[in-house]
Amino acid sequence: MTASDICFAPISELSRMIARRELSHSEIISCFLTRIERYNSVARAFIEVSAEAAMKAARRYDALTAGAQSPLHGIPFSSKDLIDIAGVATTGGSRAFADNIATSNSFLIERMLQAGAISLGKNNLHAFAYGATGENSTYGTAVNAYDHCRLAGGSSSGSAAAVAFGLAPAAFGTDTGGSIRAPAALSGLVGLKPTMGRISSRGVMPYCWTLDHIGILARTVADAGLLLQTVAGYDPEDPNSAKEPVENYTPAPFFDLKGLRVGLPSSFYFEKCDPEILAATKRVIERLEEGGASLREVQLPAMEEARTVSLTVQMPEALSYHSRYLEEKAELYEADFRAGLALGQCLLAEHYLRAKRFITRYRQETDAVFKDVDVIITPGAPVVAPRVGQAFIDWGGDQEPVGNAITRYTSFFNMTGHPAIALPSGLHSSGLPMGVQLVGRYFGEGPLLSVAARIEAQGTPLPSPPLP
Amino acid sequence: MTASDICFAPISELSRMIARRELSHSEIISCFLTRIERYNSVARAFIEVSAEAAMKAARRYDALTAGAQSPLHGIPFSSKDLIDIAGVATTGGSRAFADNIATSNSFLIERMLQAGAISLGKNNLHAFAYGATGENSTYGTAVNAYDHCRLAGGSSSGSAAAVAFGLAPAAFGTDTGGSIRAPAALSGLVGLKPTMGRISSRGVMPYCWTLDHIGILARTVADAGLLLQTVAGYDPEDPNSAKEPVENYTPAPFFDLKGLRVGLPSSFYFEKCDPEILAATKRVIERLEEGGASLREVQLPAMEEARTVSLTVQMPEALSYHSRYLEEKAELYEADFRAGLALGQCLLAEHYLRAKRFITRYRQETDAVFKDVDVIITPGAPVVAPRVGQAFIDWGGDQEPVGNAITRYTSFFNMTGHPAIALPSGLHSSGLPMGVQLVGRYFGEGPLLSVAARIEAQGTPLPSPPLP
Repeated sequence: MTASDICFAPISELSRMIARRELSHSEIISCFLTRIERYNSVARAFIEVSAEAAMKAARRYDALTAGAQSPLHGIPFSSKDLIDIAGVATTGGSRAFADNIATSNSFLIERMLQAGAISLGKNNLHAFAYGATGENSTYGTAVNAYDHCRLAGGSSSGSAAAVAFGLAPAAFGTDTGGSIRAPAALSGLVGLKPTMGRISSRGVMPYCWTLDHIGILARTVADAGLLLQTVAGYDPEDPNSAKEPVENYTPAPFFDLKGLRVGLPSSFYFEKCDPEILAATKRVIERLEEGGASLREVQLPAMEEARTVSLTVQMPEALSYHSRYLEEKAELYEADFRAGLALGQCLLAEHYLRAKRFITRYRQETDAVFKDVDVIITPGAPVVAPRVGQAFIDWGGDQEPVGNAITRYTSFFNMTGHPAIALPSGLHSSGLPMGVQLVGRYFGEGPLLSVAARIEAQGTPLPSPPLP
Repeated sequence: MTASDICFAPISELSRMIARRELSHSEIISCFLTRIERYNSVARAFIEVSAEAAMKAARRYDALTAGAQSPLHGIPFSSKDLIDIAGVATTGGSRAFADNIATSNSFLIERMLQAGAISLGKNNLHAFAYGATGENSTYGTAVNAYDHCRLAGGSSSGSAAAVAFGLAPAAFGTDTGGSIRAPAALSGLVGLKPTMGRISSRGVMPYCWTLDHIGILARTVADAGLLLQTVAGYDPEDPNSAKEPVENYTPAPFFDLKGLRVGLPSSFYFEKCDPEILAATKRVIERLEEGGASLREVQLPAMEEARTVSLTVQMPEALSYHSRYLEEKAELYEADFRAGLALGQCLLAEHYLRAKRFITRYRQETDAVFKDVDVIITPGAPVVAPRVGQAFIDWGGDQEPVGNAITRYTSFFNMTGHPAIALPSGLHSSGLPMGVQLVGRYFGEGPLLSVAARIEAQGTPLPSPPLP
């Protein structure tokens, strides 16, 4: 097995090799660290690499006489740099927080370390998670593994690039409008945003705490399920944490599609969608139908209105967190974010509450849709990865800002809080990945992952990215 | 048994008399309707009396050959006029909503009618629940049964007056800062504000939906428990409704006080409290201690700050509901409420969110206190019922607005959402009732009611109000 095979293997395979003693923990970690050293200057996936600590942990595990105690024992991972790791700076991707050393581990890091996983370091992002392009003037822009002139997608751009470039088997991100699912769709990965409150946000720097979801970027649906299993659960110290019991998130390999009702939201204006992506989504639907599923159109609220509603909640909440820092270090803040915070400063409580009332209605209307269907399907994004620096997507003369376009199908489900997953739907004629999104019922991650795994098994795996 | 005995009997006794056929349903309803006719012009407790419908229901129940199917069968009750009853106007206590006919029953009314209870009508209130004095320029001011020149207390003023004057055995109200517990304390009643979300608010006109609690004014702790049992439970159509299982709310008559830890919040500045009320509270504590309970001081945040925080949440939320009506009928709105809504219009989203962050902290700090104690005790209000028209309470030169004073000990627990109950602690030398407040753990209504019932049993029952 080559080093590249190791770096692109699913976690289950790495676990198996460790269990059979075909590979030591040090060999695996060393493989990834070597690859990070080789490719990170191109990928811009990592802001900080904790090479020494990772090797130390690996050697300690090698020295243990007992075998792996959990499927994550010795498995490396990385995390978006909003997520606290004790003793390491949580920069938020901004020079304004370059010195912000975390004093303790976030809830999810604590869970991962308890399970024996090994942190490789902190991933790049769109500063403070404000933006879906992942462009970052301080740490460089994480690029797409399939075309280095194109975006990985954001805001969890470095987490996506880390997995897509084979620099980590999986990575944690956050998703407030699509910041995990959009880069997953653009980078050929699986991106899971669980139900609101399923993963504790303790120790994660907020962007907009009523829409922020902690989630996972992974190579396979099963890997995403395994990481969710590890970090899901009630945290009394996070006021938004959900008490709902944690289910089994291992996708059922023979999940029965018979009777599965799949909903396609007709209000998502698919006329502004790359025809190849639309066709790939339809192929996914056809294969579900061949397995016994049925398709029906469903009505969700208009997306243009929903984007404004989301922004009206985002900017005051972002301001509420950042206002105490803004006065003392405004000049260190990124210009785009400063402009967004200025919008936040102009919004009245009445505006915010009106937006929250819209969101309550969105939640109710989406729950009503889930009385008629078991899963909602949309493309992951209406476009393949845009070029770095590209400002607009041109739809026959209509210019849509890049960030709006790539989160168009995802942002709504941050407001409703339903679990959603993006996964590859095939390779575009441009050679770039395409993705599909599935949305499930509240706390229905189990069945959602199983349907996703069926789609994954039915499709052709993407070719590995063409690396030098 | 005299008509007055019937009108001041606890529900359990009315039920018993019905079961033994000592009294017919019509006799009971007719008793209350006669008393309403006699005293409502003084009490100002009812805005609308549904005499005909109530008598019709009573006669229908009389005609049934089978006995009472539930302890509420044929039992009359009334409701604050924010609570929808199909076909009846929900005025909110304001002429601005005089024509606002409800098209369906609120959740709680539906539950009460299903249990066989009979609605006597709609109770007066401080218009739109904005204010604790219950003064109402349209429907008159509900007065105190023990002194008709004094306030019943508000905003559920008519609900309190109805029970205190013997015009209803129990009544529903809402409590956003103390609007059930304060009038209970002032009127010599039991006032229960359950945990946030325990009773569905569907079909109840909101004042401030993140602080509003639906609750009960009753003559005894057991009656409050019985009504809670009837209306508690998850309502999927109310986004704030709690899924927590409904417990048994019948107070345990021999609840063991041994080991009970009672917390007294030292930050509630008891130096501004009527000395007799403080002494009555101490007597309650002493009796708990004699039963085996132990007392400790606990720290809660400063009350002055908390009042501002509450207001900063209240006014934008009230505005958010009323803004659509305000333009077309501003001149019909009460002047004090218009002024409050104007404050709401000046508050930024940032202010609102800052207040919400305070509230999150209050909740956490109060939950932390409940690790050390089982119940928190305070006076119900620091004063006996103020005079109608009185603007301030004088504390040795310090003038406290009446509405602030009478909700001083209650308002904080609307922000934290903990269940709380006010009940009589004795008769003041002025001849007016005094009250005590108990606060319990989230969804701990069961033990809270049991402790309250012990206090009720240990005390001397208040004399009936001196009526003409």
